[in-house]
Amino acid sequence: MAANAMLRRLLHTAARRNPKYSTRSISYKANHMPLTLNDINPALLKVEYAVRGELAIKAELYAQKLKTDNHELPFDRIITANIGNPQAKGLDQKPVTFSRQIAALTEYPELCEVAKDLFPSDVIARAKELNAEIGSVGAYSHSQGVPIVRKSVAKFIAERDGYPADPESIFLTAGASEGVALLINMLISAPGDGILIPIPQYPLYTATLAQYRGVPIPYLLDEAKEWATDPASVEEAIQKALKEGTKPKGLVIINPGNPTGSVLPESIMKQLVDVADRYGLVLLADEVYQDNLHQRPSQPFVSFKKVIGSSGSKVPLVSFHSISKGVSGECGRRGGYFETFNISPEINSLIYKMRSVTLCPPLSGQVGVECLVRPPKAGDPSYDLWKKETDAIHEALANRTKVMAERLNKMEGVSCVDSPGALYLFPQIRLPKKAHEAAAAAGKAPDAFYSLALLDETGICTVPGSGFGQAEGTLHYRLTCLCEGVDEYVGKLEKFHKGFLDKYRD
Amino acid sequence: MAANAMLRRLLHTAARRNPKYSTRSISYKANHMPLTLNDINPALLKVEYAVRGELAIKAELYAQKLKTDNHELPFDRIITANIGNPQAKGLDQKPVTFSRQIAALTEYPELCEVAKDLFPSDVIARAKELNAEIGSVGAYSHSQGVPIVRKSVAKFIAERDGYPADPESIFLTAGASEGVALLINMLISAPGDGILIPIPQYPLYTATLAQYRGVPIPYLLDEAKEWATDPASVEEAIQKALKEGTKPKGLVIINPGNPTGSVLPESIMKQLVDVADRYGLVLLADEVYQDNLHQRPSQPFVSFKKVIGSSGSKVPLVSFHSISKGVSGECGRRGGYFETFNISPEINSLIYKMRSVTLCPPLSGQVGVECLVRPPKAGDPSYDLWKKETDAIHEALANRTKVMAERLNKMEGVSCVDSPGALYLFPQIRLPKKAHEAAAAAGKAPDAFYSLALLDETGICTVPGSGFGQAEGTLHYRLTCLCEGVDEYVGKLEKFHKGFLDKYRD
Repeated sequence: MAANAMLRRLLHTAARRNPKYSTRSISYKANHMPLTLNDINPALLKVEYAVRGELAIKAELYAQKLKTDNHELPFDRIITANIGNPQAKGLDQKPVTFSRQIAALTEYPELCEVAKDLFPSDVIARAKELNAEIGSVGAYSHSQGVPIVRKSVAKFIAERDGYPADPESIFLTAGASEGVALLINMLISAPGDGILIPIPQYPLYTATLAQYRGVPIPYLLDEAKEWATDPASVEEAIQKALKEGTKPKGLVIINPGNPTGSVLPESIMKQLVDVADRYGLVLLADEVYQDNLHQRPSQPFVSFKKVIGSSGSKVPLVSFHSISKGVSGECGRRGGYFETFNISPEINSLIYKMRSVTLCPPLSGQVGVECLVRPPKAGDPSYDLWKKETDAIHEALANRTKVMAERLNKMEGVSCVDSPGALYLFPQIRLPKKAHEAAAAAGKAPDAFYSLALLDETGICTVPGSGFGQAEGTLHYRLTCLCEGVDEYVGKLEKFHKGFLDKYRD
Repeated sequence: MAANAMLRRLLHTAARRNPKYSTRSISYKANHMPLTLNDINPALLKVEYAVRGELAIKAELYAQKLKTDNHELPFDRIITANIGNPQAKGLDQKPVTFSRQIAALTEYPELCEVAKDLFPSDVIARAKELNAEIGSVGAYSHSQGVPIVRKSVAKFIAERDGYPADPESIFLTAGASEGVALLINMLISAPGDGILIPIPQYPLYTATLAQYRGVPIPYLLDEAKEWATDPASVEEAIQKALKEGTKPKGLVIINPGNPTGSVLPESIMKQLVDVADRYGLVLLADEVYQDNLHQRPSQPFVSFKKVIGSSGSKVPLVSFHSISKGVSGECGRRGGYFETFNISPEINSLIYKMRSVTLCPPLSGQVGVECLVRPPKAGDPSYDLWKKETDAIHEALANRTKVMAERLNKMEGVSCVDSPGALYLFPQIRLPKKAHEAAAAAGKAPDAFYSLALLDETGICTVPGSGFGQAEGTLHYRLTCLCEGVDEYVGKLEKFHKGFLDKYRD
């Protein structure tokens, strides 16, 4: 049933690309006319979100099929390398025990009494503190988030940056995406307003810009320099946009990068702040991967809050963080926050009003944020296990990223920047002319054609580079570094790649 | 600090009503210009959400003040009667044990083994079933929601209505609001598109219509007939809108009503479906109070799905439900769903795409939905406690509603429909001329003036009728029936009301 419905959808998605609908009628519909795409906000029709697009839907069909006998597929499991979802089935990154123990004790506080021997004393104490402050996690909280959690976030930021943070400027959210969507909805105020986004970018940005009728203003990252951000390119993109009648309102920086994994040096950040300042842009700093650093001593994370705050710059900043990434990996709990800085009280008041319409972020996510920003300290009963678990996740991710990049770079026609941050690799692939022709014949972009073939043959689900944007004439795909058993996984990739090249060799 | 920031906001909200900003500049801003309201999407400036508006913000200031010594306020606690938040501090409706035990065991599955004697065997079994299906609640789920939960929802609907439901037409959400916002965003496709909403309405609808630039098309509920919905009034509103160049796209029905508590009879529902059919409207059925019925045998809940499904009507329907209301009251977990019916596969596909951009609803809310729609059955080890707890909540709410309505009706100049459903009363108040004059002098609507005075004197926070809409020349306020100790609570109301009338008596 599920598979059939999915198939229907795929077919209808195809049909949508070739619409036969007449132009929009001004009068209301006659009796019994069904609702058609003609009746729908055209902005939503333009939204694309490749991370959960055609490949993900096909992978889900295969996953259903694998549950049946005689499925006749050439693989026995799906590897969901398309999305940074560490705790997904098959990847199974273990949640951090401290965080889950607190979650259980806030959901069912009776356990603090009847099962207290099952939990470390600091966990019990923290849960009691949260339960006293929050009341019930089944109650709506303050629309900005529980005050005690916002205080913990502000303290975390202040300690990270050596620069103060105000709990009243913290807005908890259901993951970072919710905050990004609100800010884009706010900043796009008239036709022709645009937001600068990196290329390649995380497709949330183009999807949300499409939804809110904003113009994406792309600036290209430099693959030859390990996906460096060049402030001059950003400025060129602004100048080009202005000439074309687009008004830049905001500048999105993803640091560490997604899908690139690059980590910005402070010197470049200062120049980017200067560009934002000169053109009156709001800086939207997507910093959800700030704790995913594989070359920490040489490539540390510096926050835009620190750069802007410590320089006395007046550039308006909104920075985003999340419990979904890092070593927390708690995607399903939907927790995150954004901090506003150099934003006036009346704009903060507007943000508060808009957040209040959605009532409040999920309390489970808010408790997750508390655990992320205020983990056990050395000497606490929970500390040793927390340290062991989080170190192991950091180490495994760094090792996998390194090994995968090395092996990808050894494949014919593949070059891959060894990401110093985030959860992904974004290899470039050079495909023979015959592969391009076969893709065109199948009505697919060459990278989508490659990724679909990879899925069909190996069960590995990735996202084609066209979903993120890429320099003209180049082809990439994004894959996560979350799958254990790199040997088997990359072995499948290598075998597929060789076979693909052999099949289409010129 | 929190109080000061709130105060700043209040002042800035006031400032916003008297803007001094110059008209929008076409060129980009000069250096160092701060972000102003001028740069913000004007649609968002128009959003109003009274449930968390001026009164709620003032109540929060008072709550902070109450924590200080010598606060000099004439009350010692805030009664948050402004919002249907049963588990809020001070109201403290206990969560249903079954639901919270399942939550704890999905957050921290180890407890299924190490603490199994602390949980009934059916709870352990259910948690294991969910954990096996979901994997980790820290992983993104399917964007429509976990398949097993959608199956449970479909079964619940089918059993409720005696009419089948398809898990592929169920979309889990973070509370009902998220689904409502998406549908309104979808249906408002061009300037002049509108949605029919009842007056009084739940302000989510006007807020979301303002956000997405839709026109609210009001139809008046009949207070003299216990807030009945008259299909002829709906049709009149449609005709009026068409004459004014507004194109009706959807019809919102809140059943049981919010703030009115009225419960629709099936005969009226059939006529409303007929109106939707004749004018090609999508019926948006807000049915989040379907389990809050105080006069169940005489005024039962009938779903629009049943009415439309069993009649073979082709009217497109989207119906919303939530774990926030009913006896679950789990507002903070942000769980809900909507079901689409008579909606084409390509529209469902579009909805799926839009849901996928937000990745997935919070797993904690999804697990909450599972517990709501699939509670313990008679004979299960958990059943007796579940029955006892939920019966007690139903009974207390029905009793409080009845007693409060009786006592409100005895107050001078007050008339109040005894709500047969939902969580609220919406009394009408007739105020003396001098009170109207004092309100005008204070720059407030008379009902807001009354509600503010009530808060200042008693700490009871309500929402003025103007936040919901009301027939011209009438005044109301909404208060929840969630506060225990009705005697003390209504006693305060009575004393205040008498004093207010005496003060302003003509």
